[in-house]
Amino acid sequence: MTGKNATPVTVIGLGSMGRALAEAFTKAGHPTTVWNRTAAKAAPLTAMGAEHAEAIEDAVAASPLVITCLTTFDDTRLALRPAVASLRGQALVTLNSGSPADARETAAWAIGHGARFLAGAVKNVPSAVGAPDTLLYYSGDKTVFEEFETTLKVLGGDTVHLGDESDLAALYEMAVGAMLLPALVGFFQGAAAVQARGLEAASMVRFAGKWLDMIKSLLPMYAKEIDSGDYTDAASSVNLFLAGAAHDADLATETNVDTTWLAPLHDLVRRAAEAGHGDHSISALTEVLRLNSSI
Amino acid sequence: MTGKNATPVTVIGLGSMGRALAEAFTKAGHPTTVWNRTAAKAAPLTAMGAEHAEAIEDAVAASPLVITCLTTFDDTRLALRPAVASLRGQALVTLNSGSPADARETAAWAIGHGARFLAGAVKNVPSAVGAPDTLLYYSGDKTVFEEFETTLKVLGGDTVHLGDESDLAALYEMAVGAMLLPALVGFFQGAAAVQARGLEAASMVRFAGKWLDMIKSLLPMYAKEIDSGDYTDAASSVNLFLAGAAHDADLATETNVDTTWLAPLHDLVRRAAEAGHGDHSISALTEVLRLNSSI
Ligand SMILES: NC(=O)c1ccc[n+]([C@@H]2O[C@H](COP(=O)([O-])OP(=O)(O)OC[C@H]3O[C@@H](n4cnc5c(N)ncnc54)[C@H](OP(=O)(O)O)[C@@H]3O)[C@@H](O)[C@H]2O)c1
Ligand SMILES: NC(=O)c1ccc[n+]([C@@H]2O[C@H](COP(=O)([O-])OP(=O)(O)OC[C@H]3O[C@@H](n4cnc5c(N)ncnc54)[C@H](OP(=O)(O)O)[C@@H]3O)[C@@H](O)[C@H]2O)c1
Repeated sequence: MTGKNATPVTVIGLGSMGRALAEAFTKAGHPTTVWNRTAAKAAPLTAMGAEHAEAIEDAVAASPLVITCLTTFDDTRLALRPAVASLRGQALVTLNSGSPADARETAAWAIGHGARFLAGAVKNVPSAVGAPDTLLYYSGDKTVFEEFETTLKVLGGDTVHLGDESDLAALYEMAVGAMLLPALVGFFQGAAAVQARGLEAASMVRFAGKWLDMIKSLLPMYAKEIDSGDYTDAASSVNLFLAGAAHDADLATETNVDTTWLAPLHDLVRRAAEAGHGDHSISALTEVLRLNSSI
Repeated sequence: MTGKNATPVTVIGLGSMGRALAEAFTKAGHPTTVWNRTAAKAAPLTAMGAEHAEAIEDAVAASPLVITCLTTFDDTRLALRPAVASLRGQALVTLNSGSPADARETAAWAIGHGARFLAGAVKNVPSAVGAPDTLLYYSGDKTVFEEFETTLKVLGGDTVHLGDESDLAALYEMAVGAMLLPALVGFFQGAAAVQARGLEAASMVRFAGKWLDMIKSLLPMYAKEIDSGDYTDAASSVNLFLAGAAHDADLATETNVDTTWLAPLHDLVRRAAEAGHGDHSISALTEVLRLNSSI
């Protein structure tokens, strides 16, 4: 692709993720303008052909599509403050983590300044940006999504609009993202345990990968149980997990690994059993996770 | 396959998993003897052609390969107590969860009674038993594994011997299994969050599945970091997770979901940052999880 017909894009924020976004656009032939608070981070991108704007107002004015990738929504509004006059008429797309409330606040702020607003999330690591299977989802002004869909797909082939409400992407980002840290800490704990035995963490990678495949294969069933509220056809019961919980203290003793982070999880399992879900599917924990639930 | 040349097998314990094991052997044409404390659970299997032994000593004596699938190692020794005289010369294979210490104790007990012993784990759900990709691993007497490998593969095509030490399967079972409950609770929390917004849990299944694929793709990198102890080349840093932790309280407020189980995880992240790992890879949490570690 030549830059001739490609939509000009501005990328604001050149941290690990922002840099990957700007690189993808530059490589795909989009005239790309970049800005970063710490200006030095623009150098690798200008070397690839991107334009560096010294002032953020120039960066915002440079392209009809302005993508921000700062740490939070607060940082985003703060950084854009000197550039609000340039926002009018522009399509502003945020790609950062944050709460649904922060997404709504930023949407109201951007729309108040005359911008068309879309809030998105990259559901992958920087090195996956640009791959055909990489998932990004967006929510907010659908006309922005439709107008720039081809350009946004440069960042990942699996690009989805979730709905018109600007906070849906943040909601799903949090809902889906909630598995990451717990799953990783589970893996790190396992790694520390096999290492304590003189074995390499690498020796469990294949098994852990298959374990994640197995977990993935169970999600449709669990979602169905949760959506129907019928937990009675249990492939793996709350009581089975309760029995398993007893082993964690043994693991701690044997491998010198701190398993105390699992205590509140076991507590959820115990509370589910006490609430009468013992023979029910482990997905009945969803009921215990609802605050002020009737059980 | 006819039963003519197939190795006779005994399955002791006909809970969710044991029943699936016995079914797989019966369907594959192995002469299968079953025993369960609650004898009524044998009925569906005898209907398929399995033999039901009333007394556990008869079950143990019936086949050269005796597979147990009870809740714990303690339950297994307890149930087998009346049958110890029949154990001599038999290959005893346990397929239950338990600690490495319990596996060693059961190995010593079984070998003391003249049995040849293998301790294994089914790394999947009962419905996956028998599938070509289903993983089971075993540790202990390798001659048992080699002699009965073809028969054991009836339970899952990905059948592995981890080593001669009888507790290795339990060690890996715990190490790998540590991801399950945390990942599931993350999914259940996400499901409760989208439901609080009037959306179906089913709407996040595709995204959550891709998220697990992403996590799987990161494991080799994390294992390498953990094995080398070099956390400096961080694709996703401890500080990034620290920033994300701040949003969980927002999620709780907004969606009425209990996120308190995440507090110890955030505490691990904070402690890693305080120990100087802020800019390091999130896999540096492994160092914080080691008890009595120097940091
Ligand atoms: N990295 C990942 O694996 C990943 C994956 C999915 C989503 N994300 C999300 O992407 C977003 C960015 O992550 P990242 O990994 O790129 O983070 P990062 O490497 O820490 O970069 C943060 C960026 O935000 C800028 N920034 C922060 N506060 C600012 C402020 N007040 N004013 C101006 N600029 C500010 C930084 O500028 P300086 O260079 O001047 O500090 C830098 O460009 C986050 O919301 C993250 O959750 C990241
Ligand atoms: N289900 C899964 O998804 C799954 C997946 C992987 C591994 N596993 C492991 O497989 C093992 C069995 O799980 P499961 O799901 O089959 O459990 P389950 O459905 O609860 O069945 C437990 C079995 O153990 C028997 N039992 C327990 N204590 C006994 C005792 N003291 N004496 C005699 N029999 C006793 C029960 O007999 P009664 O029928 O008389 O009660 C029943 O046959 C566990 O270690 C589990 O961790 C299960």
